[in-house]
Amino acid sequence: MERGHGHLEQERGVWAERGEDLHRLLEWSDGVFAIAATLLAFEIRTPDIPASAPQGAVLAAVVSLLPRILVYGLTFLNIALLWISHHRSFTHIAGYDTPLLWMNAFFLMLVAFVPVASSTLGRYPERYGAVVFYAVVLLATTLADMQMWLYATSKRRLVDDGIDPRMVRYITLRGVFPAAVFALAVPVAFVSAYAAEALIFGILAASSILGRVYSPVLAHVASHPRERRPPRRGRGTDGG
Amino acid sequence: MERGHGHLEQERGVWAERGEDLHRLLEWSDGVFAIAATLLAFEIRTPDIPASAPQGAVLAAVVSLLPRILVYGLTFLNIALLWISHHRSFTHIAGYDTPLLWMNAFFLMLVAFVPVASSTLGRYPERYGAVVFYAVVLLATTLADMQMWLYATSKRRLVDDGIDPRMVRYITLRGVFPAAVFALAVPVAFVSAYAAEALIFGILAASSILGRVYSPVLAHVASHPRERRPPRRGRGTDGG
Amino acid sequence: MERGHGHLEQERGVWAERGEDLHRLLEWSDGVFAIAATLLAFEIRTPDIPASAPQGAVLAAVVSLLPRILVYGLTFLNIALLWISHHRSFTHIAGYDTPLLWMNAFFLMLVAFVPVASSTLGRYPERYGAVVFYAVVLLATTLADMQMWLYATSKRRLVDDGIDPRMVRYITLRGVFPAAVFALAVPVAFVSAYAAEALIFGILAASSILGRVYSPVLAHVASHPRERRPPRRGRGTDGG
Amino acid sequence: MERGHGHLEQERGVWAERGEDLHRLLEWSDGVFAIAATLLAFEIRTPDIPASAPQGAVLAAVVSLLPRILVYGLTFLNIALLWISHHRSFTHIAGYDTPLLWMNAFFLMLVAFVPVASSTLGRYPERYGAVVFYAVVLLATTLADMQMWLYATSKRRLVDDGIDPRMVRYITLRGVFPAAVFALAVPVAFVSAYAAEALIFGILAASSILGRVYSPVLAHVASHPRERRPPRRGRGTDGG
Repeated sequence: MERGHGHLEQERGVWAERGEDLHRLLEWSDGVFAIAATLLAFEIRTPDIPASAPQGAVLAAVVSLLPRILVYGLTFLNIALLWISHHRSFTHIAGYDTPLLWMNAFFLMLVAFVPVASSTLGRYPERYGAVVFYAVVLLATTLADMQMWLYATSKRRLVDDGIDPRMVRYITLRGVFPAAVFALAVPVAFVSAYAAEALIFGILAASSILGRVYSPVLAHVASHPRERRPPRRGRGTDGG
Repeated sequence: MERGHGHLEQERGVWAERGEDLHRLLEWSDGVFAIAATLLAFEIRTPDIPASAPQGAVLAAVVSLLPRILVYGLTFLNIALLWISHHRSFTHIAGYDTPLLWMNAFFLMLVAFVPVASSTLGRYPERYGAVVFYAVVLLATTLADMQMWLYATSKRRLVDDGIDPRMVRYITLRGVFPAAVFALAVPVAFVSAYAAEALIFGILAASSILGRVYSPVLAHVASHPRERRPPRRGRGTDGG
Repeated sequence: MERGHGHLEQERGVWAERGEDLHRLLEWSDGVFAIAATLLAFEIRTPDIPASAPQGAVLAAVVSLLPRILVYGLTFLNIALLWISHHRSFTHIAGYDTPLLWMNAFFLMLVAFVPVASSTLGRYPERYGAVVFYAVVLLATTLADMQMWLYATSKRRLVDDGIDPRMVRYITLRGVFPAAVFALAVPVAFVSAYAAEALIFGILAASSILGRVYSPVLAHVASHPRERRPPRRGRGTDGG
Repeated sequence: MERGHGHLEQERGVWAERGEDLHRLLEWSDGVFAIAATLLAFEIRTPDIPASAPQGAVLAAVVSLLPRILVYGLTFLNIALLWISHHRSFTHIAGYDTPLLWMNAFFLMLVAFVPVASSTLGRYPERYGAVVFYAVVLLATTLADMQMWLYATSKRRLVDDGIDPRMVRYITLRGVFPAAVFALAVPVAFVSAYAAEALIFGILAASSILGRVYSPVLAHVASHPRERRPPRRGRGTDGG
């Protein structure tokens, strides 16, 4: 990987883009994350209340918004989960090339679409269609995030050669987990919309609170991948 | 705290996130602050005026918007107050870990929700429900801001060890003050919506103009915490 | 001015905020500028067209939007003018203190309000009320911008001591010019809305194209302020 | 070009703005890109569904949105194409002056207007007026982007003197290609709206997937401009 400022370079007759200055890529990504997350709330609006309504009408109207406020809060935290994941990947990704610029744009396209799904779910939480729509959008977003990580780390394309392979696998597994949950929510939604929602929003709990439980499991799996035989204990490091 | 670029590190079998590069955390926070503040105005719209209306109709319509414009301006400054407070904390916070990333996301979720409360208050300033909603949202936002500061400074987790303890307490007190006002506004609103609004928007005056009055008081309190006996005067520094 | 990272320091018993790291102040300012400018367009929407309308109906609808598109374009450039002015000031401002943080917040509050005035003008360009509203909002924004510059440069508070005084005056004059035009547009609007609009949007031409004409004039005025007697020619520098 | 922080300097009696710190210019540009792209989705909204509608009504409503979702996705990627192009140019542009600040503002004004055209196309994809509007807006945006590049590179005004002239021409040609497609789409739209849309959205494929095909062609053209006689083959490099 070239060190220094980004540039074009001629590679087999083509001007290829590559560089190490990720500042603008992250700046426009953070912009999209911030706007998508903030627009989630913009859609919530206290209903119009006639002047003749009793004094308590506004408070009652706010209370009636609670399901949408709940979906707002949980979706905001889902976007935060995606941001934390993007942040985690780009702590290690140390450069860009043209495919990465496009993969990131594709990922942001999905992030910016989350408010559409969230708005639908907030209005029709009892309908399976709304949950399926939401789960599919978030599944696609999570997969696009994973794709970038796999692209950047395979053949150590855009990460340091000396990166710990256990950590590379661990970060991949962190994406597999929510992706599996979103995928599972689709068939569940056809049985019960509420069960699918409980499943989806359980990810947040799993990722923040339960993280302390499954993180060591994922770390263990990442450290002992099936395809490689684990080093025999008592030897190697201990043995004289 | 590790120096240098953020990274994952294995801690008791878990990959823990920590780092010192707060750039992206602040970038996405500033994005949310900027959007939430700007969207406040977006909701204000001159009513439709029929072509047959007299020439002065537009000016009259603008004048009729004045209460909403006032709520807009004051809420913008309340968000600015939160931004200045966040800016103040992060002048001293020198790193992040996973809990801080989540606490900040939770705080931003509340900041992005302020426009919903502001829009309700702008439309129904005479209803206690609107004031209670507004006060509760701003109280929660202020508490979430304080929580980050307390987390980062307790055990000097994410701040410099040598930080002045009087300043740590002073910054905490700066948050306690508006939190107390928002909490007080809730019962007051049930008596008079306008009194509660006067109370809430008085914070801004208190924080910017009256700041010169209560800052020294808070600074004094922060310098002489109850649990420690203040150093006797005339000794130590003066005494031969 | 303290060098280095921002911090709180105790000044006459108060913890005063000051620092040199303007990164976040500019980041949240640029965010508000970007959003306010982009939201200007969001309000423009092709009217609904029935399916039975002739093929050319969409193009006719777009053409009917031209006055609003024109107001959009000109207001975007007015916001760009404010951004360029803010950029110019902060090329020289080298630090912040608490009053500057608040003055900047107040300025951004006005910038974020420009879309409200722009939307009103776009819908009622033939009404004096819309022009007066627009001119007053832009006048207030320009004055808030100038206030920051005057605060930062008076007593060389937040700028380098060795700054060229002619340039300080020149930058002030750059703000006086549009402020005068906006102020003048208010009485003119009561005579003719279109004349006032021509006057307002002439600023842009004046600032970009005519800039080459009036810049030397302002530069001359800034170099030879009335209150000081100009140095006699042929003496001082030339004389033996 | 002056090295170091931006500043004003007196040039032939005028205070001219120039500098090398492009941070804020890129920050506000990235903000506009991020917001314009994210707002594209905001306009899409699942239609209201009566409580009495059958369970599958939401899913059917989402499916009926597919044409608009498609236009959303493709327009997002078109904005990403503009961002990547802007990013590519500013990898080489190393400073600014007043005309560049204005050209960039003008370019951003067009980027922020893309959602208006996109919304119209999403609602009336079968009408030639919507396609013409969309093609004209994107053509203007692409030309404004090219203008900046030509301004910055002509006489090596704001780029390094030693820049490879083949690359300068290559980057120009990268803009000519989509501009030609948008221009061609206008007459085509009068024959068939769908053919024009296929043409426009083919650019994305051309730019990302087909890039591997036409990039070498453009690179070849850029390396062998007509006005200069190409070096005779077999000589120079090969010839002893």
